Amino acid sequence: MPTLRIALAQVNPCVGDIAGNSALVLAACRAADEAGARLVLLPEMVITGYPIEDLALRESFQRAAAAAVSSLATDLVAGGLGHLTVVLGSLGTATTNGAPDGRPTNRAHVLKGGASVAQYDKHHLPNYGVFDERRIFAPGDSPCVIDVDGVRVGVVICEDIWQDGGPVAEMAGRDVQLLAVLNGSPFEEGKGRVRTELARRRAKEVSAPLAYVNMWGGQDDLVFDGHSFIVGADGKWLANAPGFADALLLWDVPGDDEAPTQGAVVDFASDDEQVYWACVTGLRDYVIKNGFSSVVLGMSGGIDSALTAAMAADAIGGSNVVGVSMPSTFSSDHSKDDAADLAKRLGADYRVQPIAAVVDAFQGELALTGVAEENLQARVRGVILMGISNREGHLVIAPGNKSELATGYATIYDAGSIGGFAPLKDVDKSRVWQLARWRNDLAAARGEVPPIPENSITKAPSAELRPGQTDQDSLPPYDLLDEVLDAYVEHAEGREELLARGFDAAVVDRVLALVDRAEWKRRQYPLGPKVTALAFGRDRRLPVTSRWREL
Amino acid sequence: MPTLRIALAQVNPCVGDIAGNSALVLAACRAADEAGARLVLLPEMVITGYPIEDLALRESFQRAAAAAVSSLATDLVAGGLGHLTVVLGSLGTATTNGAPDGRPTNRAHVLKGGASVAQYDKHHLPNYGVFDERRIFAPGDSPCVIDVDGVRVGVVICEDIWQDGGPVAEMAGRDVQLLAVLNGSPFEEGKGRVRTELARRRAKEVSAPLAYVNMWGGQDDLVFDGHSFIVGADGKWLANAPGFADALLLWDVPGDDEAPTQGAVVDFASDDEQVYWACVTGLRDYVIKNGFSSVVLGMSGGIDSALTAAMAADAIGGSNVVGVSMPSTFSSDHSKDDAADLAKRLGADYRVQPIAAVVDAFQGELALTGVAEENLQARVRGVILMGISNREGHLVIAPGNKSELATGYATIYDAGSIGGFAPLKDVDKSRVWQLARWRNDLAAARGEVPPIPENSITKAPSAELRPGQTDQDSLPPYDLLDEVLDAYVEHAEGREELLARGFDAAVVDRVLALVDRAEWKRRQYPLGPKVTALAFGRDRRLPVTSRWREL
Repeated sequence: MPTLRIALAQVNPCVGDIAGNSALVLAACRAADEAGARLVLLPEMVITGYPIEDLALRESFQRAAAAAVSSLATDLVAGGLGHLTVVLGSLGTATTNGAPDGRPTNRAHVLKGGASVAQYDKHHLPNYGVFDERRIFAPGDSPCVIDVDGVRVGVVICEDIWQDGGPVAEMAGRDVQLLAVLNGSPFEEGKGRVRTELARRRAKEVSAPLAYVNMWGGQDDLVFDGHSFIVGADGKWLANAPGFADALLLWDVPGDDEAPTQGAVVDFASDDEQVYWACVTGLRDYVIKNGFSSVVLGMSGGIDSALTAAMAADAIGGSNVVGVSMPSTFSSDHSKDDAADLAKRLGADYRVQPIAAVVDAFQGELALTGVAEENLQARVRGVILMGISNREGHLVIAPGNKSELATGYATIYDAGSIGGFAPLKDVDKSRVWQLARWRNDLAAARGEVPPIPENSITKAPSAELRPGQTDQDSLPPYDLLDEVLDAYVEHAEGREELLARGFDAAVVDRVLALVDRAEWKRRQYPLGPKVTALAFGRDRRLPVTSRWREL
Repeated sequence: MPTLRIALAQVNPCVGDIAGNSALVLAACRAADEAGARLVLLPEMVITGYPIEDLALRESFQRAAAAAVSSLATDLVAGGLGHLTVVLGSLGTATTNGAPDGRPTNRAHVLKGGASVAQYDKHHLPNYGVFDERRIFAPGDSPCVIDVDGVRVGVVICEDIWQDGGPVAEMAGRDVQLLAVLNGSPFEEGKGRVRTELARRRAKEVSAPLAYVNMWGGQDDLVFDGHSFIVGADGKWLANAPGFADALLLWDVPGDDEAPTQGAVVDFASDDEQVYWACVTGLRDYVIKNGFSSVVLGMSGGIDSALTAAMAADAIGGSNVVGVSMPSTFSSDHSKDDAADLAKRLGADYRVQPIAAVVDAFQGELALTGVAEENLQARVRGVILMGISNREGHLVIAPGNKSELATGYATIYDAGSIGGFAPLKDVDKSRVWQLARWRNDLAAARGEVPPIPENSITKAPSAELRPGQTDQDSLPPYDLLDEVLDAYVEHAEGREELLARGFDAAVVDRVLALVDRAEWKRRQYPLGPKVTALAFGRDRRLPVTSRWREL
């Protein structure tokens, strides 16, 4: 058997950009051909982008996707690439008992010589967590094995390897020499390790090397991390691509009785590094794919806005970040200094916009006191940012973090929770500090100026909405709070389980009540990237109106 | 065979209020017993409320629901009602191949003599539209036929009658004398007719009368309309309960060879009347079930806030409605007069809060022009309402309508789109006028003062954010706009289909672009009641980031 060179094209498609995604595929195929590959694997639904949600159900969209696959097959031939076998994801037509199903399939097309010569429809449709695939897709029921230059290649899609049975189990008896897995697998911390172990197990099951190609890039609240790889039939790690970047991963399928070839291997980044770049990627792609080129945010001198601004600078360049300091009579001098220092480190467009005159005008009319007065200051800042955005066209980004969002410890419609995107939405406060330190350490290691002022990391967190206020006047210490939140929100443990883990009953009851009462605020929060096993949003769907209380 | 009296208990449970819902059930059983019934049918998931979303997946919640069913069985006996057969919805325990499934079942329990003597698990789990039941429930696979005083009664749940095959088809061969259908079926315009026709067909299929019991009340973005009924084996209309109200519908199952008895029949309300009360019910239950007793909204003198205020007065009483007129320099005299007139008609707490001083203070700092200046005025009103809400504890309600939400023709975070609930979220502008006229006609027919000033209905709609502005400066005429929106949004037609229906290409392209660009604003909108076949929100799930354009 001749050796077959394959290429895994790790690309960043955009939902709905069918022409642009087709062009990405064509360019990747050209590069693969130049590198000597004969089989090119592209991600799940690369032609349409992923996830497309209810766009899948539109006939006009289905027609456009089908036309794009046909055109691409022709364009490959016209570009002198008709000899390549190209496996890529798009939509397919589903029928139930011969009649058209309203839903399409999630399909892998095998293109060669100007036509789609084989098709595979995803069998296992995930309908949990962030996924609603039974809503929008009809399942497939037939396996797909193709012959590429004498090598038998099995094709499956993403969830098919996560469930026992189905097409992967069927492959075991079919003597395949390579299992190709097309993926749109979103990032969450630690998922790389889980995927890897799973792939090793499936490779052994089918007694063949497994090629795992994943897309990368941000799509609303999801970030795809890439991290494409190849494992051998014995589970050995043979080659992999980096995360959060374009890549073309090449590998030679060994001939019969040849030892598996070792390809390029890169180290996995640390968890902090992965989470950081996931947030940056989510933000950058939200900005760019929605047609913006700059962002504006409030710079309070605190850690949340400092980390958010640093991420924005990494995403689109510091000169495209507008930071607005909006001091009130309760703002400390160090806050203003830290904000200015941050902006200088990032090369951001920095402005100071005092709020006292506006707050006074409101108070002349409303005479609010207590929390209502605190909220007023916070909302004035929100109105200022929206005004600047409307005037200058920057996207407003929200620096609120997951601990805040969980407990509702933030004023709705304030500068921390308005706008289009919230990079730290799924990052709890403890992790915010940790990521800030990690980012500064990276700068130090690179010999660069650390982006985040040390004082923003070390000082006690405060909303500065009344004299001497700190977050811990209203909340348990963040290390404790974040532990309770992790158990209650991410692991959906009940009060009983929390008490059994040794948490104090008063703390547990207080935190649970805060979380349950804040659901309405979460519903109106901007999108932000999922980076944990359970993010707020479509990953955790709970009623606003609910009298359920853990007791 | 003796005649059996049955009672359909149309009640309004609250999600998560397991103790309160159990008490509702007990009270309904007592009333049914006093009326001579021996079989009591209650709605789908009446013990837990419905829909409970991911609460279903919490072990603590599952345990509480199971305990409540056991207690209720005991309490019925203790209350001298152990002779009743009570069929009600709650959760069940699912196993897959003997192992526990993470998901519970959507279960009907048959309680008698202190125990759950039979169970039925919903077979068809809807996973389209607003439903995510494959996410949270495991399906059942066995039919359930019980004997009640010698009458064979089949039990199924909601979606089971909407799909061919499954448990209803199985009933056909089992000689049942009554088919009991437990429902949590949300309202949409015209659905009553569809349900009725479906039930007639299913009754004929199983050759038995069909008893359809539905819950009523608001739950976040859904309104359950009740409208419980009984049809005969020949499809004849035998008895029904009104919509949007508590009811105990009694009916006697005929003995063998007896003609079916005719029960109480009430006329269906008109579509306008149903939609109006659906909005009122959704608002009232959001307010009450979330622990509020009053609402605040901006009263501009326009039709949207006038209809919203009238609905609020019908929901919780005019004296619990706070209306705030917030005139700017562009507000016309008629606007202020119409707002004052409205408040007087409703008996609302009316306040005038000019915004000029605050807008001037902002402009002294920001010097915004054009749309940015218009938005500023709108957002100042939002901040004022939130301030009043924070000070006095009223729930802020948003008067924005579906045409606005569809096109993004509203300032995000303004007085029309902030707060907890938006009663007109699924009501397009044309329908807003129609409902206003319907409500005033109802008042006239009752000899009451029409709640809505005639001038608010007849004048040209305007946001009054610049001199002489009208909505039609920016949008097509509402009758045309709403037709295009109906085709594009509710019926998901593509551009090709819209042009084929004769719409002007320029109008189509403009409207489609507006709708597609406004998705990000819709994500941050308050909840509001679904009243059409397709509402924004979980009923229509589309990405924010999307380059798909109908061409």
